[in-house]
Amino acid sequence: MQSIQFVFPTKLYFGKGALNRLAEVDLPGTKALIVTSAGGSMRRNGYVDRLTALMERRSIPYVLYEKILPNPHLEHVMEAAELAKAEKCDFILALGGGSTIDSSKAIAIACTNPGNYWDYVEGGSGGGKPIANRMLPLVAITTTAGTGTEADPWLVISNEATGEKIGNGYASGLDTFPTISIVDPELMMTVPPRLTAYQGFDALFHATEGYINRKATDVSRMYSLKAIELIAKYLPIAVNEGGNEEAREKMALANTLAGFVEWLSGCTSEHSMEHALSGVKPAITHGEGLIMLCKEYYTFYQAACGEEYLQMAKAMGRRNATDPREFIDALMELTEACGVANPKMSDYGIQEEELPMIAHHAWYTMGGLFQVDPFLQTEADTLGILQRSYR
Amino acid sequence: MQSIQFVFPTKLYFGKGALNRLAEVDLPGTKALIVTSAGGSMRRNGYVDRLTALMERRSIPYVLYEKILPNPHLEHVMEAAELAKAEKCDFILALGGGSTIDSSKAIAIACTNPGNYWDYVEGGSGGGKPIANRMLPLVAITTTAGTGTEADPWLVISNEATGEKIGNGYASGLDTFPTISIVDPELMMTVPPRLTAYQGFDALFHATEGYINRKATDVSRMYSLKAIELIAKYLPIAVNEGGNEEAREKMALANTLAGFVEWLSGCTSEHSMEHALSGVKPAITHGEGLIMLCKEYYTFYQAACGEEYLQMAKAMGRRNATDPREFIDALMELTEACGVANPKMSDYGIQEEELPMIAHHAWYTMGGLFQVDPFLQTEADTLGILQRSYR
Repeated sequence: MQSIQFVFPTKLYFGKGALNRLAEVDLPGTKALIVTSAGGSMRRNGYVDRLTALMERRSIPYVLYEKILPNPHLEHVMEAAELAKAEKCDFILALGGGSTIDSSKAIAIACTNPGNYWDYVEGGSGGGKPIANRMLPLVAITTTAGTGTEADPWLVISNEATGEKIGNGYASGLDTFPTISIVDPELMMTVPPRLTAYQGFDALFHATEGYINRKATDVSRMYSLKAIELIAKYLPIAVNEGGNEEAREKMALANTLAGFVEWLSGCTSEHSMEHALSGVKPAITHGEGLIMLCKEYYTFYQAACGEEYLQMAKAMGRRNATDPREFIDALMELTEACGVANPKMSDYGIQEEELPMIAHHAWYTMGGLFQVDPFLQTEADTLGILQRSYR
Repeated sequence: MQSIQFVFPTKLYFGKGALNRLAEVDLPGTKALIVTSAGGSMRRNGYVDRLTALMERRSIPYVLYEKILPNPHLEHVMEAAELAKAEKCDFILALGGGSTIDSSKAIAIACTNPGNYWDYVEGGSGGGKPIANRMLPLVAITTTAGTGTEADPWLVISNEATGEKIGNGYASGLDTFPTISIVDPELMMTVPPRLTAYQGFDALFHATEGYINRKATDVSRMYSLKAIELIAKYLPIAVNEGGNEEAREKMALANTLAGFVEWLSGCTSEHSMEHALSGVKPAITHGEGLIMLCKEYYTFYQAACGEEYLQMAKAMGRRNATDPREFIDALMELTEACGVANPKMSDYGIQEEELPMIAHHAWYTMGGLFQVDPFLQTEADTLGILQRSYR
């Protein structure tokens, strides 16, 4: 028998033009810290102007913080939190991808709790303190189809001082869900092909890891299979034909469904290993790091997950699959269709001798996810997966 | 492109033993009106005692109202609301099936808004007034797998003075979702076979109507297909072997998923027609009334829904279906497997000459649902469906 909590406190608005909902919905505060990325694409695409115009029309004052980097940094979290406190902002408006929204969750926590955000991180060198106060309310506007963070309570922050990249989140009580999320595929039309692919694979692995996770239920698996089906069908189109509205919409939906999976069952150690990789080498995009690992990770668990792999292979379009291996074959095919096959760790300067340290980091920083793998691997197994993945 | 609101304000706890969550969760008030049915089964099964013991352990005072009937009556709604007001109850605890939970929603509205609940009903002789005040908070404990009302904002109340049975509900702003819902399959183990079947078919038709509803989205359809799949597989087991825990659990889940469908896309005119039937003849159980109508209703729309019927046939186990008609065949087979095939309107004293009045009532009381049918039928078409369904 299974126990499921359908507790989803976020009001999530999905669809083309959903951004305009911010003209009418109840906002959870009276002065906003708008958080966005350093790259400038949010400005170039006019999204910052659209958002500030919406706030001005509602006479909501705001302060802008535009420094968030990929694999977002703890120092920016703390700088933005100081700004929000000094300016007496009472809610956060996050405009961007997973890095921006995750940073905003951390900022929202740091605004209402004393000390440094890292004091409240569990794992690694994190302080492991329980958060005592509910975070500032957060409105998350996602401009990518990747992390699903708009639909789950998780956040991942990198500590550049220690080389750690640690996931965190509070799922009950003082939770870290956004209050409002906007998923508007129109804001995703200009994501470049390579990033589209990496983000799409991140969403895909949320769904596939959640599917084999020991905590999977009928409901999380329903979301997983739908997300896998949509990604297998539409990601190559979104990558190769970025202006295709249908493909962007279906990828946005798949991403949100995969976010529900992260919340209801969750990621497995494939994500621990990747965070260790891109924690050490921040130039590795999260999705690319997952692609580096996926073949060997899923091969390791193939014998234990025959039925699950068959169902996922079918969702990926191999309707008559009879061999669980076809799931892995379909994964590899999809990396080729999206032009992101065979990424190499060595291209990012990772040395083979560093792999034991990376395996150790995966356990040290995010050991919890190993507990929900189909069966428990050892740190030696983790190293083996990394070594077989090394090119 | 589709627009979807993932806004689900209810905290819903699902699974065996979920009732015990009431020992620990935050309750939305300090004094409860416990609403339950007149039949006595809630007492005989010990559920009332379990619930009152939970409240006593938390020192939450309560008042009991135990008069709710199937096809619940407006007069009981108003009597219970008077009791709650006199006793200064500030939340409602509903323990029972759809009749009890729907009544409790109406009671909760009547407690905080002046006049009679019927003043706030849209359609038929309802007053059509907007509700001005948020209803009292509601904790819904469902003991049947049928209406899905624990997971949606709808309620259906019968006005015995006028012979009307009208669905209602407020989906945004002052919404009529429960604050907390408990779906505990353990409380469903003793539902008799015939009621199990009727309730299961009600859930099934929420899913199938929602699937062909013009407002259906990728998400509502995902819930529909999962509910249809679970019901086709497990309803015959739950009916014929009531003590089968797995079948009861899967039916409870299917019911909740079908409730999500009701919320995200919704019922079609099959439900309008049935409410007109059982509004006129309250002895007809809602699920049985739907079975009376389903063959002709779905035959009417077969030509317009080829692909949808194929997908539903496949979800019902006909994996290689190529003819949309197989969906209707599978429906008929399921009625036989559950021992509820071929119910007759004439057994309830309905005369063929009454059918035009019933068709008219369907339009008069719940005309809105005709607008979301696959295509708009006329009142003459409605009469034709009723006439071809008449036995």
